[in-house]
Amino acid sequence: MTESVSKGPYVGQVLGEFIASSTWESIPPSVRHESKRSLLNFVGGALGASADPVVATAVEVLLPFSGEDRVTVIGRSERLDAMGASFVNALGANLRDYDDTHWNTAIHPAAPVIPALLALAEQRGYSGAQLLHAVILGVEVECRIGNAVSPEHYARGWHITATCGVFGAAAGCAKLLNLDAAQTWTALGLAASQSAGVIENLPTGGKNLGVGNAARHGLLAALFAKAGYTAGSAAIEGPLGWARAMGDEPKLQEITGQLAQRWEFQRIAYKPYPCGFVFHAEIDACLQLRERLGAAPGDIREVLVRGNQLFLDRGDRDVVTERDARVSIKHVAAVALARGTATLDEFSAAAIVDPVIQALRDKVRAELAAHMPTGEASVTVTLRDGRSETAHVRHPRGSLDNPLTDEALEAKFKDNARYAPRVKDPSQLIERIWSVDTAGDLRILMRLMAPS
Amino acid sequence: MTESVSKGPYVGQVLGEFIASSTWESIPPSVRHESKRSLLNFVGGALGASADPVVATAVEVLLPFSGEDRVTVIGRSERLDAMGASFVNALGANLRDYDDTHWNTAIHPAAPVIPALLALAEQRGYSGAQLLHAVILGVEVECRIGNAVSPEHYARGWHITATCGVFGAAAGCAKLLNLDAAQTWTALGLAASQSAGVIENLPTGGKNLGVGNAARHGLLAALFAKAGYTAGSAAIEGPLGWARAMGDEPKLQEITGQLAQRWEFQRIAYKPYPCGFVFHAEIDACLQLRERLGAAPGDIREVLVRGNQLFLDRGDRDVVTERDARVSIKHVAAVALARGTATLDEFSAAAIVDPVIQALRDKVRAELAAHMPTGEASVTVTLRDGRSETAHVRHPRGSLDNPLTDEALEAKFKDNARYAPRVKDPSQLIERIWSVDTAGDLRILMRLMAPS
Repeated sequence: MTESVSKGPYVGQVLGEFIASSTWESIPPSVRHESKRSLLNFVGGALGASADPVVATAVEVLLPFSGEDRVTVIGRSERLDAMGASFVNALGANLRDYDDTHWNTAIHPAAPVIPALLALAEQRGYSGAQLLHAVILGVEVECRIGNAVSPEHYARGWHITATCGVFGAAAGCAKLLNLDAAQTWTALGLAASQSAGVIENLPTGGKNLGVGNAARHGLLAALFAKAGYTAGSAAIEGPLGWARAMGDEPKLQEITGQLAQRWEFQRIAYKPYPCGFVFHAEIDACLQLRERLGAAPGDIREVLVRGNQLFLDRGDRDVVTERDARVSIKHVAAVALARGTATLDEFSAAAIVDPVIQALRDKVRAELAAHMPTGEASVTVTLRDGRSETAHVRHPRGSLDNPLTDEALEAKFKDNARYAPRVKDPSQLIERIWSVDTAGDLRILMRLMAPS
Repeated sequence: MTESVSKGPYVGQVLGEFIASSTWESIPPSVRHESKRSLLNFVGGALGASADPVVATAVEVLLPFSGEDRVTVIGRSERLDAMGASFVNALGANLRDYDDTHWNTAIHPAAPVIPALLALAEQRGYSGAQLLHAVILGVEVECRIGNAVSPEHYARGWHITATCGVFGAAAGCAKLLNLDAAQTWTALGLAASQSAGVIENLPTGGKNLGVGNAARHGLLAALFAKAGYTAGSAAIEGPLGWARAMGDEPKLQEITGQLAQRWEFQRIAYKPYPCGFVFHAEIDACLQLRERLGAAPGDIREVLVRGNQLFLDRGDRDVVTERDARVSIKHVAAVALARGTATLDEFSAAAIVDPVIQALRDKVRAELAAHMPTGEASVTVTLRDGRSETAHVRHPRGSLDNPLTDEALEAKFKDNARYAPRVKDPSQLIERIWSVDTAGDLRILMRLMAPS
């Protein structure tokens, strides 16, 4: 709109210049390493979900709409064009709530960003370092835009992984496609008209479509920008632009401040358990109590879980589907106490109807602890014999203050890989990911992600 | 979300039942006829834009991502799969601001809704009556949802044609694909997570991507609902659903009231001039004054145009591109006064740099008439010899109170068809559209829309 032409510099302009001028050499080694951890975690998540009916259905629906130039769909024998593969790999990696979390925004950054970059890199023969560089810039843009609108954006009903993910995918694709600063600015502006996804759909396929679209649309935005489409200069922050339409006045300094100095990759954590991250403290507390009490599930009389309002809003629910289980206060306590672990097996259909888990779920009660910060929980287990113990967890495993080691990430990868048995060599895949920054192209790596 | 499970009936549920149970026989003849007028207007608009670089670029970008089962891209020799054709035909029909307008919401209803239905009908051999029935239901849903959030939604920055269009496309596709009531409800819920498009991008390619996506995503929503995906029961109106995330409390009665009695097709008008409809009263006033004054452009000293704040916000701009011309108070006055007409030629690149038009644009001044309703304008032309005349237009040609006749729509169609010279027989195409309700399939009709 003409009213905003005189204001500048626009945030899209600043980001466009940052992305276009960024060099791989300027990225700190710790951030480079973090991008490999992110890739490992992402590929594992996509493998773990690759046989899920939600993924199978997406492949089936999209196959008739795929062009002939096709790339890898992680964990599957079918191949799809770069648009379709971006969509399916994104929704798969995010499907089981086992991905990564940007602490400040609750964005799961990798799922919408990495797929389009992998697809482009596989298709066009980009190097591993080019891929990682684009991942780093994409995640940076996605999380910074998320910071600018958090926490109001999520609270209002926007599924921030999808709504901000599209900007990250656009930014990363712009880098890989070697767009100049102005074209990159345009790609971000085109992303603004493709940002969508509501919380009300979170426990459903609507979530998956939103995350899949975010990946696909980032690629679409970059391709159309490259082809000469235009976008509003202030599409992100203008008076009738993305941020204000979606909610409140954006904090623009969060987007443009300390670029190339502060890296959002340093605020991203990886989930040790395949469920909503607000339930991780509860799981850790239950694991501690199981250890301390040494009680069999039948010995337990009551489990009282305390957390803040967000925790209760998200998780105080009965369990019918696997989606429910991944966001249920009752289910996560039951599996942790009964089995002493919380892997993908514990959130499977079989675990949901396991009589031991069912009986234990019925004994779990949630209570509001209004002033507890998000991410914390306390659990009190009372036994039939009257004994009672409480555990309070402030920094759960996998949180920023208690991060997963590289070895723990590898173990998580292998837990995921068990769900893709036709992918033959997870260990070699892990090795190739740790050395991807030295790979001239991604052909061998991508071949290892699909059934041989 | 669990909180809303007990509330029902949900608006998606009511709409799903309405759509699934609607019969062609139950549609009033006047509404059926209006749907043919809409189709005629839509096809004409898509033809008129079919050679535009914006359309050509979209085809070029999407061709590598098209499956083999392809359908017609209106006015072009390339064919695309149903997803790609939906996208391109939608953005084309809407591109030149020459389409239809739903009076209450400013939605341009046909562009996002008809393309996916045409594509499905062509691909799967549905009849003309099935097509029109789906168009009627799709437009109905799109405009009712728009009514529920207007006028706040547009004012907040949402491009309502795209954001509500996706619901219309989903509803129409659900009908054509013969989804049951529950699946249709799901398709509408999946549309809620794919609704996007901001006003800040209106004068740019961002607008086109938004409208194209709306069409494509309606189809995607219906296909995923058919394949078994789920969506939130209250995805449209729930506490963290579409309407509230995007703005304010929705007026749900606007969505579910008087279904099958009140038809939104009776509130849709067709543009006689290829520019924003708020400029049409200004054009009519200028045409009257040209007639009355009989003055050559060089005789004019000043043109004073009065309208309300929306009118000035949208149109008080200088003209560089064709997009600018279509929303410029100065340009529309200049062409109407200089040429006595306002067809596609008057908004072409050639017209923009025509020295007579340029000189006249510089003499146009806009002034606020705060209390004038949207859609009205008054124009005062003052000549060098001192003569001055004013014309005030309340109901411009093509408005609800002054609708275009079928003959005027045919003339408009032919104006459009001049821009697709390789489409050989516009008259036969017009005839086939008027009788489409009796067509067993659409093969001949679709063949007439592409170069022979």
